[in-house]
Amino acid sequence: MPVRALWWERGALALLDQRQLPGRTVVLRLRSVAEVARAIRTMAVRGAPAIGVAAAYGMALAAQRAGGDPDAAATLLRSTRPTAIDLFVGIEAVRRPWAAGENALEAAHRYRRRVVEECHRIGVAGAPLLRRAHGVLTHCNAGALATVEWGTALAPIRVARQRGAKLFVYVDETRPLLQGARLTAWELARERIPHAIIADNAAGHFLSTGAIDAVIVGADRIARNGDFANKIGTYEKAVVAREHRVPFYVAAPWTTFDRRRASGASIPVEERAPEEVLELGGQRIAPRPSRARNPAFDVTPSRFVTAFVTPDGVVRPRELAGRLAAQAGA
Amino acid sequence: MPVRALWWERGALALLDQRQLPGRTVVLRLRSVAEVARAIRTMAVRGAPAIGVAAAYGMALAAQRAGGDPDAAATLLRSTRPTAIDLFVGIEAVRRPWAAGENALEAAHRYRRRVVEECHRIGVAGAPLLRRAHGVLTHCNAGALATVEWGTALAPIRVARQRGAKLFVYVDETRPLLQGARLTAWELARERIPHAIIADNAAGHFLSTGAIDAVIVGADRIARNGDFANKIGTYEKAVVAREHRVPFYVAAPWTTFDRRRASGASIPVEERAPEEVLELGGQRIAPRPSRARNPAFDVTPSRFVTAFVTPDGVVRPRELAGRLAAQAGA
Repeated sequence: MPVRALWWERGALALLDQRQLPGRTVVLRLRSVAEVARAIRTMAVRGAPAIGVAAAYGMALAAQRAGGDPDAAATLLRSTRPTAIDLFVGIEAVRRPWAAGENALEAAHRYRRRVVEECHRIGVAGAPLLRRAHGVLTHCNAGALATVEWGTALAPIRVARQRGAKLFVYVDETRPLLQGARLTAWELARERIPHAIIADNAAGHFLSTGAIDAVIVGADRIARNGDFANKIGTYEKAVVAREHRVPFYVAAPWTTFDRRRASGASIPVEERAPEEVLELGGQRIAPRPSRARNPAFDVTPSRFVTAFVTPDGVVRPRELAGRLAAQAGA
Repeated sequence: MPVRALWWERGALALLDQRQLPGRTVVLRLRSVAEVARAIRTMAVRGAPAIGVAAAYGMALAAQRAGGDPDAAATLLRSTRPTAIDLFVGIEAVRRPWAAGENALEAAHRYRRRVVEECHRIGVAGAPLLRRAHGVLTHCNAGALATVEWGTALAPIRVARQRGAKLFVYVDETRPLLQGARLTAWELARERIPHAIIADNAAGHFLSTGAIDAVIVGADRIARNGDFANKIGTYEKAVVAREHRVPFYVAAPWTTFDRRRASGASIPVEERAPEEVLELGGQRIAPRPSRARNPAFDVTPSRFVTAFVTPDGVVRPRELAGRLAAQAGA
């Protein structure tokens, strides 16, 4: 059975609690917009496309309450996390129909179907890029858990494997919250896709030895010029990949592109609690007096991107602004 | 009181068990070469200069036993870890005098004094490089714990601070074994040197924002052309530092230079147990079927090094071979 991050079930948003994987498989059933907001803030659900869909269902839950207000619900959900633009897109996808008197739950279902369908098309569009790859590096989790189904970065890997490609996946463990070691490895293990977890520090070594010959990641927000925000550490991998002339692909549905932002300079980067770095599994690893800095994302300039893998095919960074303008005009 | 990694006490090699810091301060008292070999292999003592000194005392302990054999003791100690050349230098520094009938313990003391004194001179030589730095990044632990006293990378930071420099130190946590978050932070916290621990993934972000304007690391082995092995992740930091034209310094005593090796291509890189990546504090973090790759070191080419900080001053990579040849001839 394929992995699904969340689904609608008997009047509630059901989602896998991603903080507990892979040790425990716990399904949360959320019945209010406040519960959805908390799940996003605490990262029970994470990944830009998935939090967009969760927020859409949060709006739908608010709409089912007597006296529910589209703007109040949107304001609450917008306050949860700042970087991934899908969150704001998902909220708007329900707020507007709801405010116009349409069925909010139907709007949320439509948004989910759109994201899932776009991710599948990303897989089809990206698979040929990986046909001749031997070792593919991915960072964080850009799989089904991050996107409801298929994934962004993992979608081309899945489709390439279905078509017989012999890929080996290097999984960055992705400190501090270990989304690679916990979530990406869990998805790959379920589907018996050969992989090895590596300390984030080791990616450069395997790029320098030639073991890794392609890199593919997801994104949390992509500006018109192709600068993009993604999980902290993405920037380092991009710089080292270019040093070795290894192609660096960014896979994302159209909901992740920020058409109003000219470049990455102004993308808001969330700084999360220092305890995420100072503790592991509730245990302090650092000396008591030590502090930490914990930016959750970094911004990678467009010049490090070989191509964006979109639902409508592979787009070079220099083609991106034109493609987005054409969509807006269509 | 300054930190000391190890010392000779009542016929035994006493050393801080670095696996237990910062949570517990445990002193191991080792009375045989086998115990010293085990402490090196299991990383109770680590850091290239420190394992060299520990090995020297291991030889001295072997010499005190009836029937102790210099070659057998050396063979045992050489088998513990392959990458840091100081290990082999420390063994030879005692094996030769012992085989020639001299006092092995005196030879070990001499070797320790040489390493401590060279580290102090590294501090004096390197401090001027950091005089105008605001944020200094260091990777792993290249402090007193790694070198007996002073440290290599931390020695110039200590001396610069004593001279009034207002440095802030960014400490890479250094997965998988967290030598930065556990050991470097512990040393800095004891001396009230301002610092923040960061996930290794975050160094690129702070280089790109300009918060980090100098990088200084230690080394496990430096070839004649300036290529060097150091803790896994060093290579990524070097590549990203160069991208931002941030100076990248490598601090090491002369015992870390491998005069017989022309380049880094043939430096042996230790691959350690996958459990170091798959588990944290004995708890499995990854899915059961997942494997890991765990190279403990990487090799950074000379072209990424701004300068080596040696006991005899700052040496540019292109000057290194000549300097080493002059020493050999002296």
